[in-house]
Amino acid sequence: MNIKQSILNKIHNKEIVVGIIGLGYVGLPLAVGFAEAGIKVIGFDKDPTKIDRINDGKNYIKDVRDAALKEVVENVTFLATVDFSQIKQCDALLICVPTPLDKFKKPNMDYIKSACTEIGTYIKKGTFVSLESTTYPTTTEDFMLPIIEKESGFKHGDDFWLAYSPERVDPGNKDFVTKNTPKVLGALNKDGLEVGEAIYKFAIDNLHLVSSPRVAEMVKILENTYRLINISLINELALLSGKMDIDIWEVIEAAKTKPFGFQAFYPGPGVGGHCIPLDPFYLEHIAKKFDFDLSMIHTAGHINMRMPHYMYIKIATALNRHKKAVHGSRVLFLGVAYKPNIDDERESPALEIIDKVIGKGGVVSYHDPYIPQIKTKEGNTFKSVDLTKGEFEKADCVVITTNHSIFDADFIQKNSKLVVDMRNIIREDSENIYKL
Amino acid sequence: MNIKQSILNKIHNKEIVVGIIGLGYVGLPLAVGFAEAGIKVIGFDKDPTKIDRINDGKNYIKDVRDAALKEVVENVTFLATVDFSQIKQCDALLICVPTPLDKFKKPNMDYIKSACTEIGTYIKKGTFVSLESTTYPTTTEDFMLPIIEKESGFKHGDDFWLAYSPERVDPGNKDFVTKNTPKVLGALNKDGLEVGEAIYKFAIDNLHLVSSPRVAEMVKILENTYRLINISLINELALLSGKMDIDIWEVIEAAKTKPFGFQAFYPGPGVGGHCIPLDPFYLEHIAKKFDFDLSMIHTAGHINMRMPHYMYIKIATALNRHKKAVHGSRVLFLGVAYKPNIDDERESPALEIIDKVIGKGGVVSYHDPYIPQIKTKEGNTFKSVDLTKGEFEKADCVVITTNHSIFDADFIQKNSKLVVDMRNIIREDSENIYKL
Repeated sequence: MNIKQSILNKIHNKEIVVGIIGLGYVGLPLAVGFAEAGIKVIGFDKDPTKIDRINDGKNYIKDVRDAALKEVVENVTFLATVDFSQIKQCDALLICVPTPLDKFKKPNMDYIKSACTEIGTYIKKGTFVSLESTTYPTTTEDFMLPIIEKESGFKHGDDFWLAYSPERVDPGNKDFVTKNTPKVLGALNKDGLEVGEAIYKFAIDNLHLVSSPRVAEMVKILENTYRLINISLINELALLSGKMDIDIWEVIEAAKTKPFGFQAFYPGPGVGGHCIPLDPFYLEHIAKKFDFDLSMIHTAGHINMRMPHYMYIKIATALNRHKKAVHGSRVLFLGVAYKPNIDDERESPALEIIDKVIGKGGVVSYHDPYIPQIKTKEGNTFKSVDLTKGEFEKADCVVITTNHSIFDADFIQKNSKLVVDMRNIIREDSENIYKL
Repeated sequence: MNIKQSILNKIHNKEIVVGIIGLGYVGLPLAVGFAEAGIKVIGFDKDPTKIDRINDGKNYIKDVRDAALKEVVENVTFLATVDFSQIKQCDALLICVPTPLDKFKKPNMDYIKSACTEIGTYIKKGTFVSLESTTYPTTTEDFMLPIIEKESGFKHGDDFWLAYSPERVDPGNKDFVTKNTPKVLGALNKDGLEVGEAIYKFAIDNLHLVSSPRVAEMVKILENTYRLINISLINELALLSGKMDIDIWEVIEAAKTKPFGFQAFYPGPGVGGHCIPLDPFYLEHIAKKFDFDLSMIHTAGHINMRMPHYMYIKIATALNRHKKAVHGSRVLFLGVAYKPNIDDERESPALEIIDKVIGKGGVVSYHDPYIPQIKTKEGNTFKSVDLTKGEFEKADCVVITTNHSIFDADFIQKNSKLVVDMRNIIREDSENIYKL
């Protein structure tokens, strides 16, 4: 029996073991999804804290239901480990590691490289390998394949299959979770595509197959680049609208009444999170190899990089009207998460604005109901303060950086001397409210 | 009785006369809409050919039903004239004139100026005036108001009202026509807004009121700028994808499976028509007055301007593989309309590509089922040829510039030596098909 027929039989009998490498906001929901479908899952992560928590049945990802994790761990369909040698037990390996940018906005491929090296060392014959992390087109074929083949001595197609299937996780989205979000899959050959589809079907309702990993890689970049450039456009128009005495929020609400050919984006202090501020730069990186200048991404990135600076200027301008300098003023930030109702402050513009205010001598405090403490790039650390009237009284300026639904606009307005509202949560106009 | 109560009474009794200035693809459907609601409409246009055709009941706009025009003309609820002195009969004046760019991509405001001068000369007291043409924010207040007040000697608010309500006509759209497309309206004062809403309600199902004309002006610019930058992005990604051996059309189809946060745009030889290539530059124009550089629009405009050049290069490259130069080759263009299934070639990139091919010594012919003849910017004139096998045999290269539904991809592929398909209508891969 050839390796393809062998794994298809195992899939049919639900006897495969799926290994998930990286147990963050992508990997953990996926692991629980497979385990809930009755597939044995081994989760790999280098962080022993995460492993211990999982094996104790303690969930740490908001989009995973606590009870669901507890159940699959208790039933021993899901176990987690720091021991990558257990890769040899797995029939499928799905890589969900981070792909951050380094300080010079170049892709940091260390996590993918490390995962491929571990896989190459321990992989058994007939295994399906898929990358889910966002990366530049050609990564699967030109970066991953050589590492795995070299480390394992295996040959793609004869001994294992390699594919790319980008995660589409939208943290906090109640309608679309891992299972019911259609998933794109591109493999290096037809057998790999067939095997990959059969495996993913346990955890994903709808798969969309494409002709190659590089097409799938470009799909993910297109989706996030679309968001980056549209957010950058609306931020630029917001800045102009401020100068022209036009309420950009009113403009967007009205434009939304167009029933075709328009999708609304909202301005803010800059884009954050693990995808939108990063992914387009992967593409910019590889485009250079093809002597190609991606001017739209470049321009959008430029606007986004400067937004925290403009936001600092808004704060300084607001304080100035109260005859106060930033130097020595108390500034209270509300919300440091990069988007509403989540507990993630990665790449959040709020942190950068805080650094700028501190750099100019401001005295900062913050409140975020989901993030008890923060450390900024400049190394400033804070604990979230309670939202008492006293905190508002002390603050020379209150800055709304995240629109958590829990924030009470009336309470904020009533108790603040001065508000810079970067998220349009205060609808009333007043002399002491400065909007983006 | 004050002027507001007077016009509201007239509206209530359906006794108002509505004047529509400019009887093109915006004005004519609007005129027919009011007339069908039983309102007397006078249509104004400086082109006597249009006036004669209307008064003969002969329709010339695809989105207007022939029978509908015939009926309202026969019932004398709609008549058209070149005599602008009849403005004095009107209680409402809706301006639907073109706002093109001049050769230096600066707004040409002559049509609006001329309409305002005619209005100022003949307007009677208590008239509601609204501009529908796309223009830069502040036009209504800073450009139109002074002309009308000066010419008429009237005072806004006491003697007449001025508003802005952008047209959202999407030629060829079967689902959304003038009546059922929500319309944004912003007036210079509250009375004007109230009167304007009451008038527009005869012809428009849903009105969305905003606080000022400049907000409404920005709404229209935002809608079209959104389209320009997204088309420019996908065109840029298409060019990169070509270099990376990635089928951008397959990428878009896959990205469309994302059920949130994505809207698909398609690449092509460049944006055309009367809105998308022009409107964003109105905003760029006024932004300069505010010392503001709109970098996203600037970059998008740059890509769009260069697309016809890239498309010429595609044609030259395809011919080169057949060991042919553009010089002396016969090139047959299929479709010159700026979008499918319409009869409008304004700002169509096809015309510019034709000029480039001719400029390099190519021998051009074209076929478009909806456009019997064309004149390019360089003054080249052509008549549409019949799509016979002989025409295909003669052509060294067939270029698909517009994806009219009527085009038969199989027939084109079977009968052409070489095809440059800029619209992805030929799905099969073959050596003689070059895609964008």
